[in-house]
Amino acid sequence: MELKQFDGFKYINGGVCAAKGFKAGGINCGLNSNPDKNDLGIIFCEKKCTAAAVYTQNKVKGAPIIITQKNLADGYAQAVIANSKNANTCNADGEEKAQAMCDLTAKELKISASDVIVASTGVIGQPLNIKAIEGKIKQLADSISESGSIECAKAIMTTDTFSKEAAVLFEIGGKLCRLGGMAKGSGMIHPNMATTLNFLTTDAAISCEMLKKALSKITKTTYNRLSIDGDTSTNDMVSIMASGLAGNAEIAVENADCQTFEKALYIVMMNLTRMLAKDGEGATKLLECTVTGAKTENIAEAVAKSVIGSSLFKAAMFGSDANWGRILCAIGYADADFDITKVAVSLSSKVGKINVCKNGSGIEFSEDEAKKILLEDEIIISVNLNGGTEQATAWGCDLTYDYVKINGDYRS
Amino acid sequence: MELKQFDGFKYINGGVCAAKGFKAGGINCGLNSNPDKNDLGIIFCEKKCTAAAVYTQNKVKGAPIIITQKNLADGYAQAVIANSKNANTCNADGEEKAQAMCDLTAKELKISASDVIVASTGVIGQPLNIKAIEGKIKQLADSISESGSIECAKAIMTTDTFSKEAAVLFEIGGKLCRLGGMAKGSGMIHPNMATTLNFLTTDAAISCEMLKKALSKITKTTYNRLSIDGDTSTNDMVSIMASGLAGNAEIAVENADCQTFEKALYIVMMNLTRMLAKDGEGATKLLECTVTGAKTENIAEAVAKSVIGSSLFKAAMFGSDANWGRILCAIGYADADFDITKVAVSLSSKVGKINVCKNGSGIEFSEDEAKKILLEDEIIISVNLNGGTEQATAWGCDLTYDYVKINGDYRS
Repeated sequence: MELKQFDGFKYINGGVCAAKGFKAGGINCGLNSNPDKNDLGIIFCEKKCTAAAVYTQNKVKGAPIIITQKNLADGYAQAVIANSKNANTCNADGEEKAQAMCDLTAKELKISASDVIVASTGVIGQPLNIKAIEGKIKQLADSISESGSIECAKAIMTTDTFSKEAAVLFEIGGKLCRLGGMAKGSGMIHPNMATTLNFLTTDAAISCEMLKKALSKITKTTYNRLSIDGDTSTNDMVSIMASGLAGNAEIAVENADCQTFEKALYIVMMNLTRMLAKDGEGATKLLECTVTGAKTENIAEAVAKSVIGSSLFKAAMFGSDANWGRILCAIGYADADFDITKVAVSLSSKVGKINVCKNGSGIEFSEDEAKKILLEDEIIISVNLNGGTEQATAWGCDLTYDYVKINGDYRS
Repeated sequence: MELKQFDGFKYINGGVCAAKGFKAGGINCGLNSNPDKNDLGIIFCEKKCTAAAVYTQNKVKGAPIIITQKNLADGYAQAVIANSKNANTCNADGEEKAQAMCDLTAKELKISASDVIVASTGVIGQPLNIKAIEGKIKQLADSISESGSIECAKAIMTTDTFSKEAAVLFEIGGKLCRLGGMAKGSGMIHPNMATTLNFLTTDAAISCEMLKKALSKITKTTYNRLSIDGDTSTNDMVSIMASGLAGNAEIAVENADCQTFEKALYIVMMNLTRMLAKDGEGATKLLECTVTGAKTENIAEAVAKSVIGSSLFKAAMFGSDANWGRILCAIGYADADFDITKVAVSLSSKVGKINVCKNGSGIEFSEDEAKKILLEDEIIISVNLNGGTEQATAWGCDLTYDYVKINGDYRS
């Protein structure tokens, strides 16, 4: 998919290994019966990092979430271990096994177990085969390399059809810095949380406190504005580790350096968000809804999320049907304050743009032109509330036969 | 589908014509290009009725909603006119045409235009062909008969696969009373409103005020606990007219008679709700989630609605897959106060029952037995929060290929 360009930031390769000090790896340890599919991934930094994470707001929290929260309480971490195929959630012995994953990792890497971030994704409520992980922990450690980000990114994939990585190069105080990340989709994804599993790394020097603030802030405008299917997962987590090896003066207050760092974080997280939307379960189209003219950013966000979350509109997009009434309907049930009689809506893609609604009522447009626009695989829905100057963007995907197929029998 | 039995209430035929004084009819007026599909329906009472309605909470309100709200402000009505195929919503001339539907009806029936309830359902944002209605208004009036409820129920169907009617016979103060209704589905249906179009009639005598109270109260525990797809329609309305012809002493305070009336209303509305769920767009299964052991009824309702609304769980039910982790996940993201470590879940249908989760963790069960239970077309999900004595039930359906198919190209 096309990458949006930003002045002063350059996209680079390497994912979580782009930043100095980080290596990664991934293997199949037998959780996935297909030996060619990685199911266990690792990220390691040569030095202890400042670190932060945001977690699912689901009351049912995966055991790894509970252990990671404990380990990150001091603001430091040095490694990540993550598996797919089993969420290690709703199991009586879940925490014990999540702790064991940290202990095994720490022993192999010769670091403290309390510096390990642990994550699991997959089926809920089935006992985790910790023996499989234990038996292959040495092989996992041996897989670590400077080019291993892709193997780790593959290891956390569940129903994803492609692995998701992004990284940027930027400058802080004359020093070159790098920030990169990986993410996994592709179902059980809905705003109001830290969506899915996301691991980020950077070599910028930044304090624990500022790292936490930046991560929370950017999560709000990226992952938390993504919806695939309205289901908030039990195991969602976004974590970031900062090695400080870029050599910049540590960011410890909200200054210009901090803004640059936040922008780098936004670019990587926004791109991962778009990839997650495009690869939503069964999706054939990325939907991007931008709401402008709102009295507050919260209003814009509520309306954008409402449109992106509408099953009926999502199904219409699958059919490339310009059923804009469903957009109006979804705008109308958003819990937000605006004047529906002022709303204007247009639909666009790289081949063109059409206005479909003005002052809350339909206007004539060419169905042929609409069809041409909607047959593309990245669709932008622009909503102008004409009631202010604030805006927000949310991301989602169409609802397709394959979503139903994938989820009709997920466990087998 | 099986009807639940209640002491003192007997199911009868006749739908909205079961109550004394009411007649109904339905025809094709050309809005639907299939001449064999009714698209215009009418209900008429020989005398002016006390009447009440609840409406969609969507900010985008269909023009008929606005006109009906105005007409019911005095608490009286004598007729209903309703069309399908076009929602008369988001049109600049919508209110004018909704008013014209009332005027035409009033003239033909020789009643006041302000005593007409008007409703439309179908595509949003396309101009309503009022000429088609005007040209057939006499034929519509001529179609009115004591057995016409079914023709009217057919006229309001959109993607419904069967018409939906229910009626009961009961006794108030020694007088036999009747209460009946009809409803249409089957998409754009989500709690927190008066779901879909529903017309109810009764011959019990009840004051405007008490009728309004009873309707609001029972809507909360029936239609507002139904979700097909999370989309709250622009044209939802539940209306009721009471002729008083049963001859009971008018219900004017909250006494035992009022309770009997409310129970009759509950039975009819609950059965219509179940029909709507079972006939949800593309649905192959009715899902009924009952949450017990809650501290408050609101908590039980929030949890039940959350389960019923989960796309992932709905897809799993389509596949008859006992993926109970998704139930726990949906319970976990309900905005409600309870202890997740006390939650127990079981699944049942008419062929059996299995416990799948206790104390928030999975327990062993036979997958074969689970499959057998889930292959049935009415599935009950029982959730015990083990934290109180309150309960609530919500209704929904599975998510299927056909939902996507129906909505991928709805307008054509």
